[in-house]
Amino acid sequence: MPRHSVPLTTLREEVCEANRGLARHGLATLTWGNVSGITPDRECIAIKPSGVPYDRLTPADIVLVGRDGRVIDGSLRPSSDTPTHVLLYQAFTSIGGITHTHSPYATMFAQARREIPCLGTTHADHFHGPVPVTRQLTAAEVEAGYEDATGRAIVERLAGQDPIAMPAVLVAGHAPFCWGRNVAASLENAVALEAVAFMAFGTVVLAEPAGPTLLESHILCKHHARKHGPAAYYGQDPG
Amino acid sequence: MPRHSVPLTTLREEVCEANRGLARHGLATLTWGNVSGITPDRECIAIKPSGVPYDRLTPADIVLVGRDGRVIDGSLRPSSDTPTHVLLYQAFTSIGGITHTHSPYATMFAQARREIPCLGTTHADHFHGPVPVTRQLTAAEVEAGYEDATGRAIVERLAGQDPIAMPAVLVAGHAPFCWGRNVAASLENAVALEAVAFMAFGTVVLAEPAGPTLLESHILCKHHARKHGPAAYYGQDPG
Amino acid sequence: MPRHSVPLTTLREEVCEANRGLARHGLATLTWGNVSGITPDRECIAIKPSGVPYDRLTPADIVLVGRDGRVIDGSLRPSSDTPTHVLLYQAFTSIGGITHTHSPYATMFAQARREIPCLGTTHADHFHGPVPVTRQLTAAEVEAGYEDATGRAIVERLAGQDPIAMPAVLVAGHAPFCWGRNVAASLENAVALEAVAFMAFGTVVLAEPAGPTLLESHILCKHHARKHGPAAYYGQDPG
Amino acid sequence: MPRHSVPLTTLREEVCEANRGLARHGLATLTWGNVSGITPDRECIAIKPSGVPYDRLTPADIVLVGRDGRVIDGSLRPSSDTPTHVLLYQAFTSIGGITHTHSPYATMFAQARREIPCLGTTHADHFHGPVPVTRQLTAAEVEAGYEDATGRAIVERLAGQDPIAMPAVLVAGHAPFCWGRNVAASLENAVALEAVAFMAFGTVVLAEPAGPTLLESHILCKHHARKHGPAAYYGQDPG
Repeated sequence: MPRHSVPLTTLREEVCEANRGLARHGLATLTWGNVSGITPDRECIAIKPSGVPYDRLTPADIVLVGRDGRVIDGSLRPSSDTPTHVLLYQAFTSIGGITHTHSPYATMFAQARREIPCLGTTHADHFHGPVPVTRQLTAAEVEAGYEDATGRAIVERLAGQDPIAMPAVLVAGHAPFCWGRNVAASLENAVALEAVAFMAFGTVVLAEPAGPTLLESHILCKHHARKHGPAAYYGQDPG
Repeated sequence: MPRHSVPLTTLREEVCEANRGLARHGLATLTWGNVSGITPDRECIAIKPSGVPYDRLTPADIVLVGRDGRVIDGSLRPSSDTPTHVLLYQAFTSIGGITHTHSPYATMFAQARREIPCLGTTHADHFHGPVPVTRQLTAAEVEAGYEDATGRAIVERLAGQDPIAMPAVLVAGHAPFCWGRNVAASLENAVALEAVAFMAFGTVVLAEPAGPTLLESHILCKHHARKHGPAAYYGQDPG
Repeated sequence: MPRHSVPLTTLREEVCEANRGLARHGLATLTWGNVSGITPDRECIAIKPSGVPYDRLTPADIVLVGRDGRVIDGSLRPSSDTPTHVLLYQAFTSIGGITHTHSPYATMFAQARREIPCLGTTHADHFHGPVPVTRQLTAAEVEAGYEDATGRAIVERLAGQDPIAMPAVLVAGHAPFCWGRNVAASLENAVALEAVAFMAFGTVVLAEPAGPTLLESHILCKHHARKHGPAAYYGQDPG
Repeated sequence: MPRHSVPLTTLREEVCEANRGLARHGLATLTWGNVSGITPDRECIAIKPSGVPYDRLTPADIVLVGRDGRVIDGSLRPSSDTPTHVLLYQAFTSIGGITHTHSPYATMFAQARREIPCLGTTHADHFHGPVPVTRQLTAAEVEAGYEDATGRAIVERLAGQDPIAMPAVLVAGHAPFCWGRNVAASLENAVALEAVAFMAFGTVVLAEPAGPTLLESHILCKHHARKHGPAAYYGQDPG
């Protein structure tokens, strides 16, 4: 792999670091989560090996797979969720990293098959509207290729949305997938999603029985725009 | 800035330390929170730079802005919430520090647009009555200057209250702002607010469906007075 | 104080260590909690100084007060809750240590003015029956001497119960007081109370709307007896 | 014990390490939990001594007991739950380790006497169906031998199920027992059970008043099979 050798080393380090970040941010119990990244030419995906604890992970352990999901380089077996990652990279060409976790509050919404409504500016800062839930897979889909079908259900659910403006989805009965322009952004979106889900959970409880008030759309759009819009003024490196 | 040079160095250190305290006290995910302080002559505000992680923050990174919010000194862009801080310092002349967070339980109440009722002595020790919620901003206000309008809505909501006796507010659909006589006191009030919001959340759940009993006013006043009144006898430095 | 000098040094160390334990066990935000101990002859009480952070506390900071609550030795002001501790030591002659916290889940029950029912063996291992709640104090009682009145309300509520078998109470609208045969036992009971309150909170939520089932009395008595009864067989040093 | 000497040393180390893991994974407050392991010939059980803090535990402290529960080697008293462990090893001959905790969310379900329904793939990855609850013990059973009776009630409740496919049970009004092919697997199942119980708790709350949707059986079986079935492809060591 002479053409890729330098960026691949960097990508493996970024993917390793983000996977270790899952544990550091409290997003993953045991080995329940995986992060991947893709090269700029979208030929090669770097992904966590299956079932390896985060604190033992080194860049050399990160598995490289091709556009078809087959292993290009690495002595370990890639994450069993690899086909889902491959499908998302094919469909969402603006993304450079994917983070899958079973973080508890986001997973509660996924298990309740309930979208996360936009109830405040914390949500609006990261997700432009409610975080959607996929439909459930049929038995035939599961049998024909479970992880592929998961990816297709996500793409189907995001149809018509810009994946950069809505960088997360809840897989019904399963857990969230997040993504971003690069590996670190996908992890940051997973951190934000869990915090937003926690706050939404409590807001739903406090707003019983009437149900919570959605954030007004002019506030939602303002907060998203001040961080991500063309005239963004949050942070030191605006949009 | 010869006149201010010594106090400004100290203020920058205090503001840096309090911003780092946001992470240490578990009040801020990612970079969701900012602390500021003002000089005794109220000419200069020291505030966190926008989007910089707490663990990398040094006193030199703290941005100095004037009474109009314009940068006086510092190479980084100040917090995007700076106009809100400026407005609060203008209206509340007894305060010396402001802490804004998205701490989860206080934010749940802000998102539910529900004041935090005074349900116990922990609350009464820090906040003399229910912690109020602002009204929602109109689309016109957001367009004309969102962060200014947020500050004005806070000042409007606190009208008639001593900001030292009620050192916190919940911005509807957003999150809390806290303040105090100095920078450290504003941070301490943010820590207390989150703990009080957590306890209020659980009390509300336990008191369903009748709803919680408010703390008797003679207990509320006694607890506030023994810590903050003219004859205070809590701590080593009363009143 | 020649007669007490050796035990007093030890008592100060034990009380200092237990106060530091409040922070280590996550039972105290800011300085919201205090631990005390009493000498075997019940002449001298060692207690936390008011408002001092736990991580700066040394044995020399611990204040010694007499049976009347007046300071015998120490340069700092004792906890503002000292009169409550004094009253409990007078009434409960079998106890050697007292721990007062605002630990969140126990405080939620105190604020909801709801006893903690015995819902499981974790509870029965430490508390022989429901943890009771005091009545609310009148305005006259608060005015005449708030902390004394708190102590009297606790003693009134525990009337007829062995304080070693029920080593905790919830002060209505305030927070828990725990105690034990010695300083360390009072802290251990405060740790157990918070864990038991957390579990009871969740059990109440899961058992809605029917309400939770109380632990059968033959299990309650069995668990308490195997740990604390005359034929106890839990631990290495049975009863 | 010449025949066992080498494996017994290893077993003691494994059991010591797993008991320390209870504290590291946040599964045990004070000394509320114990782990054991059994030799391949099922003649000797290594178990935690009663009431010893996890951070002081060394392999030499681990007590060895025989098939009848009597101490073979060790200077400390074994866990008071030893008879329950002995009974489970007799009945479930495929298991090599047992972990008993009072982890809070699993205990909430045990106290609410409510099975943990399978609401998502996190659950299905570890437990093949709902985690069952035992019936309550009678006063006569408690008197005749409480810990034995607890073991018999667990075995009675698991009748007809493969203990490897359902490696956990909730003892009504008490807390969970977990097990696995070896000591480490039993601890991992206890970690998974607590995380799954936490997620189920939140899902139940979010799904009020309709109640949560059970995970479709074709997804449940798929997830369990991809991790534990004959053609498992999760991890580096399938099936």
